Amino acid sequence: MKKYSQVYEEIKNMIVTKQLVCGDKAPSVRKASELFGVSTTTIQNAYFDLCADGYLIAHPKSGYFVSDIDEINTREETVLEKSNIKYDLTGGIADADSFDFTVWQRYIKSALRQKERLLSYSEPQGEYDLRCAISGYIREKRNVIASPDRIVIGAGVQPLIQALCIMLDKKSVVSFPDKSFVQGIGIFNDYGFEVHTRDKDADIIYVSPSHMTRWGDVMPIKRRLELIDYSVKHNSLVIEDDYENEFLYNVKPTPSLFALGKGNIVYIGSFSAMLLPGIRISFMVLTEELEKKFKEIAPRYAQTAGKTEQIALCQYIRDGHINSQTRKIRRLYSAKTKEFAKLLKEEMPDALVEIGENTLQIVLRCRFNKDLSVFEEMGISVFVEKYKDNELVLVISPSGILQNEIKDAVSALKKAIES
Amino acid sequence: MKKYSQVYEEIKNMIVTKQLVCGDKAPSVRKASELFGVSTTTIQNAYFDLCADGYLIAHPKSGYFVSDIDEINTREETVLEKSNIKYDLTGGIADADSFDFTVWQRYIKSALRQKERLLSYSEPQGEYDLRCAISGYIREKRNVIASPDRIVIGAGVQPLIQALCIMLDKKSVVSFPDKSFVQGIGIFNDYGFEVHTRDKDADIIYVSPSHMTRWGDVMPIKRRLELIDYSVKHNSLVIEDDYENEFLYNVKPTPSLFALGKGNIVYIGSFSAMLLPGIRISFMVLTEELEKKFKEIAPRYAQTAGKTEQIALCQYIRDGHINSQTRKIRRLYSAKTKEFAKLLKEEMPDALVEIGENTLQIVLRCRFNKDLSVFEEMGISVFVEKYKDNELVLVISPSGILQNEIKDAVSALKKAIES
Repeated sequence: MKKYSQVYEEIKNMIVTKQLVCGDKAPSVRKASELFGVSTTTIQNAYFDLCADGYLIAHPKSGYFVSDIDEINTREETVLEKSNIKYDLTGGIADADSFDFTVWQRYIKSALRQKERLLSYSEPQGEYDLRCAISGYIREKRNVIASPDRIVIGAGVQPLIQALCIMLDKKSVVSFPDKSFVQGIGIFNDYGFEVHTRDKDADIIYVSPSHMTRWGDVMPIKRRLELIDYSVKHNSLVIEDDYENEFLYNVKPTPSLFALGKGNIVYIGSFSAMLLPGIRISFMVLTEELEKKFKEIAPRYAQTAGKTEQIALCQYIRDGHINSQTRKIRRLYSAKTKEFAKLLKEEMPDALVEIGENTLQIVLRCRFNKDLSVFEEMGISVFVEKYKDNELVLVISPSGILQNEIKDAVSALKKAIES
Repeated sequence: MKKYSQVYEEIKNMIVTKQLVCGDKAPSVRKASELFGVSTTTIQNAYFDLCADGYLIAHPKSGYFVSDIDEINTREETVLEKSNIKYDLTGGIADADSFDFTVWQRYIKSALRQKERLLSYSEPQGEYDLRCAISGYIREKRNVIASPDRIVIGAGVQPLIQALCIMLDKKSVVSFPDKSFVQGIGIFNDYGFEVHTRDKDADIIYVSPSHMTRWGDVMPIKRRLELIDYSVKHNSLVIEDDYENEFLYNVKPTPSLFALGKGNIVYIGSFSAMLLPGIRISFMVLTEELEKKFKEIAPRYAQTAGKTEQIALCQYIRDGHINSQTRKIRRLYSAKTKEFAKLLKEEMPDALVEIGENTLQIVLRCRFNKDLSVFEEMGISVFVEKYKDNELVLVISPSGILQNEIKDAVSALKKAIES
């Protein structure tokens, strides 16, 4: 343990255990330096961080004072425990073990050192070097050949879809043959497009070939080719949302539609699932025509993704971390899904348990005749695919459950269904 | 200087001066520790940061290698020097002296320590505790009383306007009496609204009372009251974009329209100008009716602002840094604008030089009969308000010019106009 951390932890501990209480003055930097037998720089750093974390408050010229620790606790409780959900099986959260915060922090720190760049707005399309890095990444991973000029970055997939909605002809008919992307359907509706969920008869076709259904079915290559042929013949635009392509496991890696090399295709990808849900960076590859249109609207739509994270991600990709992170997360999530499914089969032998082609999801079919509120009462958040005639179909994503919590999560689920 | 920085700088220097060249293996951590006479932890930290900054590449199990430094240089040149603009007088960039990167970095580090929170998506409205902090901040600063539930956060003002466009009745007529916010006019046009720039006759009125014109005129209190009365009488919605209210200097601080306490008002504010253009965090206060509508659309519009920066900003506001930052930036920018205007008057005695009510802008009127491309040729980017009949009107924002560059910037401007 470094000296700095010792000082930080000792003072924090004195505050948490109420040896120092709200309003108390902390020892001066010089005095604390004698007390702990470390340099004043070390104390200063510890004090700065205690301030940033809310334990101390700096009063210019009069020193450091202990803040209201109960207030911090109440705050954290309101933020963290607003819901009583103990087991989130909806896949909306990541596993704490999946992400190396220390590595990411180094890249953020490095980005914050590039002061010159942070002083100006990002280009509307996003930082040029990040677009170069993404161009290399998708070429290698998904065989998508795209110049950085064709790539547009955004703070999540939604702002990108919104940009498309603004650029596309409002008289177009849009189809979502996969149905599962309800947010996407909602957005196109909000922008006044005619939207349906039939397979064809559309000017714009929105598909997620690696995640067609909520339980992660993959689009067979035959249907991919048909879709491309249709789009070429009818001059329709295909929007390929390559959602969760990284998690395909039981099936052979399927090529992206874009890589098939025909038709008008907009390719969409995201880093949130690979990194952290709180890091909002997605991207799309535009067609030549849309690239021109984007240049027209760009002056009134500033880039939404933060510049610091864009700079950090660029170097993170260049150094190969995104590849090792993908391997790590795939191994981890796949192992958890398998174990979850195995335990579920053992605990509920009468139920039907299946893992999807995309290993992030488990489909559970079982008999059930209670009110669905029982799940929330048991602290479980889960996606109900169907509940009819005493049959229940759940789609379970254990990504956010820690390995050592799986057993308890399965027990809680069994109890909710059977008790 | 700390040991760590010495090691970092020495190795970086050896790479930059080509004593170590691309492909060379760096000494092992143990060996470097003996060489520099510091702990292996110090070496490890320096190596990690040299990797993050692109000077070294880590090869797992085989050590650290020097990367292609020329490639870094080329990259940085493409990123930084894509344009030859030496003096950006459009106000789009910030002054390197205006922002304390070290303090901000501490808050970012602290945010990255809150792993639990970073593992999940942000609420669609934005982080609850940041909304609490903003609620307190605007109450104190702008007399805007708003519960955190009414506040929506977004990655910049544009995503917030887009959310409004989605929620508002498309048959509404929108007026932009201030005209200067061309991006806003463009966005409402993109969403199919009927937009005009007359004063009244509108269901929705978009105004920036602290920055009505490009040169920062402030809306007089009489017109504010008229506007509110009109909106109450006609049941119209007023969108108050409190853009650059922090920079009012020559005039008394004017109350926000919202604080007048009448009518249907959406209040919009932003932190980008106070912090860094690359930090994308803005917010709006919704009316009761729009708050309800937002809850309906929220499930399909994820929060765009990054979670790390939201958490950091929350604590930064709580600790009073935003207030001291506002004072600092106002003092700095106002001093620069005054000096710029003074030098301009001395250098170009025949021109008319005025500082706006909002001290960020200078209006320059002078005789001119060349092609406007002369400014770009001289490395100057500036906003041309008018150029007709040999009369030129420029709006100059010196915010991005360092204090010691002002003289050269004025000379360059004079030369471009007179030579």
